[in-house]
Parts: sequence; C-alpha cells; structure tokens
Amino acid sequence: MGKPVPSTGNAPSPLVVNISARHCHLTQEAVEALFGKGHQLTPMKWLYQEGQFAAEEALTLVGPRSRVISNLRILGPCRTLNQVELAYTDAIALGFDIPLRKSGNIDGTPGGMLMGPEGFFEMPDGIIRAERHVHMHPEDAAHYGVAAGDRMKLKIGGSCAVTFDEMLVRVDESFKLEVHIDTDEGNAVDLKPDTPCELVK
Amino acid sequence: MGKPVPSTGNAPSPLVVNISARHCHLTQEAVEALFGKGHQLTPMKWLYQEGQFAAEEALTLVGPRSRVISNLRILGPCRTLNQVELAYTDAIALGFDIPLRKSGNIDGTPGGMLMGPEGFFEMPDGIIRAERHVHMHPEDAAHYGVAAGDRMKLKIGGSCAVTFDEMLVRVDESFKLEVHIDTDEGNAVDLKPDTPCELVK
Repeated sequence: MGKPVPSTGNAPSPLVVNISARHCHLTQEAVEALFGKGHQLTPMKWLYQEGQFAAEEALTLVGPRSRVISNLRILGPCRTLNQVELAYTDAIALGFDIPLRKSGNIDGTPGGMLMGPEGFFEMPDGIIRAERHVHMHPEDAAHYGVAAGDRMKLKIGGSCAVTFDEMLVRVDESFKLEVHIDTDEGNAVDLKPDTPCELVK
Repeated sequence: MGKPVPSTGNAPSPLVVNISARHCHLTQEAVEALFGKGHQLTPMKWLYQEGQFAAEEALTLVGPRSRVISNLRILGPCRTLNQVELAYTDAIALGFDIPLRKSGNIDGTPGGMLMGPEGFFEMPDGIIRAERHVHMHPEDAAHYGVAAGDRMKLKIGGSCAVTFDEMLVRVDESFKLEVHIDTDEGNAVDLKPDTPCELVK
C-alpha cells in the first residue's frame, strides 16, 4: 500500500502514505503466554519504519460479546505494553465501542482476551483506534515547519477525494516520513499506489 | 444516524447527513425469485427520503470466491434494476474489486448470486460502491447555488475531522436535503448525532 511521492523542492524525503490494517503490539510476556515459553516473534515482512516488522505470528481477539477477529497480525519487536489497533468497522463487527487514542495512551480503554496456539492472555485495557498520524524525522518536521504534537492536513485526490484534518505529527530521530491511516480511512478514499497525496499545514 | 443541523440564514432545509450501510435495491421479479411468487416487500423502517423504506426482508449475497455477506438489507420500493451497494471494506471481505458508480449506472460492473428463503437470483452486474452524494430539492439547490451533477464538499468536524470532496449533487422535486456517505466514510470520520457538518461549494 506504500505510495512514495517524489519529494519536491528542498523536501528531504518523499511522502509515503500507508494503510495500517488492524494489528496488535505485545509485550514479551504476552508473546510467551500465547506462543510458549521463550518464544520470539519471527519477522515475516519488514515495514517502512526502521526495525519494525509484521510477524509471522497472528492471534485471535475475543471481544466482549464472544465475537472474534481471527488472524490478527502482531507487529514486532515487542513493546512495554499490549495494544490492539482496530478500525471502527472492526470494532462494530466485534460489537463494542473503542476510543480514539494516540498510540500508547491506553488508560481507561477497553480490553479483551487474546488467544494463541499455546494459551490465552487477558488484556485489561489497550484496544483503541489509533489517531491518524505522520511519522517524521526532525529534518522532515523542520521542512514542514511543524513540531511533535502539531496537527496537519493530508489532502488525497482521486474520485473519492478527501482531506483528513487532525493528522497528528510524531517526531523522532528514528522515524522516516510516513503517514499512517487506518482501513476505514484508506477505503473511504480508495487509496491506490498512484493516488495523489499532499501534506499541508 | 440522522444529524439534522438547524438551517441557517435563509436555508430552506436543515442539513441531514446519514450513513448508508450496505444494502440492495431489487426488481419485483428478483423479490419473487427470492421470497416467493407474488411476494411484496414489507416496510420495517421508513427512511428520510419520502416513500423509501428498509424492508423486513434481507438476503445473502454470495461473492465470486463463495464468500458471503448475510443479512443484506433490501430497500424498497422495488426498482427497475437490481443493485447492491457495498463499502470497499465489505467488498474486500468478499474478495473482489467493485467500482465507484453513481447509483443506477451499473454497465460493466460485477455481479453475484443472491440467496433468499425461497430461491436464488443471479445478478449479472450491479454490485457497486455508490458515489457519495447529496439529495436536494430544487429549493435547496437554489440556496446552495448548485445544479444536478455538480460537486460539493462536506466538511465534518470532531476529533476525526474530514472534508469529503467530490460530493455529487442530485436534484429532484421529490428529494429532501440529505447527504449519504457509506460506512467506510462514516467510520473514518466517526459520525455521531452531534458531529458538526457543513456543506460547501
């Protein structure tokens, strides 16, 4: 789903817009509960952000009404908290409400039960819709004249043209310029490899 | 999901924005093939547009890979063509591509098999994503200064704020002012009864 747009003028990086399908981040403790003692996640596909990968491992999420989402992909490497990121369409299929949150901000969010081949792991919280966001290296932030926590707009063209407001700016030395929207947003706009995209203040 | 916004200034009508979940329109011939000879659709819920209703009857749609969507709602009254309107998320779940079309413009679109309690009905074509659109009475069109076939923008506020471009204007004496977006669009923007909406040229 990557859509690198050649950088223009003095922009340091091409703009990449990717759709994040539903997925989860796990602690090593949760991985071992689900896949067995000492289990390590196996990279299946490297993602655009350095060191991040889609793992071969997937799990089943059981929602509050015993409805399930199976084959939920795990992204690695392991983190210090457990977090499931769904689109609202997914959450409605599971039969519950989830809040919009910045990744990592999971206080007071709903939880669920995770099922793996070797066991269960109960998440007391951590099921969210992740806020649409753009990863930026400090050089990208300087180019666009924004800082971490700012909001930008993403203009997407084509027959289902949309402007996404409230695009959260995240800045880190380790980041490459990349916008993440979810499947509802990606399908609303029919994002294709050749869809024109522009990031504006 | 209705969201009437009080009309401002000299606007003749409040702005209503509704989400169209996946549904189908059928001919009387298809209704009889699926539900039995002489069967008439039974209104379950009247819709905002005069005379339109969600029927008690629903059916199962079988996609090209034998995946199904069950409980697909039928909207009445019957029409002169068979048309299924899905969101892209639905189409991806069924495992195929559908085109974006204005309602009624189904030439060259994919078809599928419909299953009802009394039989099957094969649609050779007619499965589309409906273009986002706004129904307008001629007085509304005059107020906004637009004509049938024009495009407007719908600005939606809130934490998932979005501007939908390419909102197709449809005008008819029988129409009441109402915007229709699909579930992908509605979930992308988290449309709630109190979400601020504005229609602009």
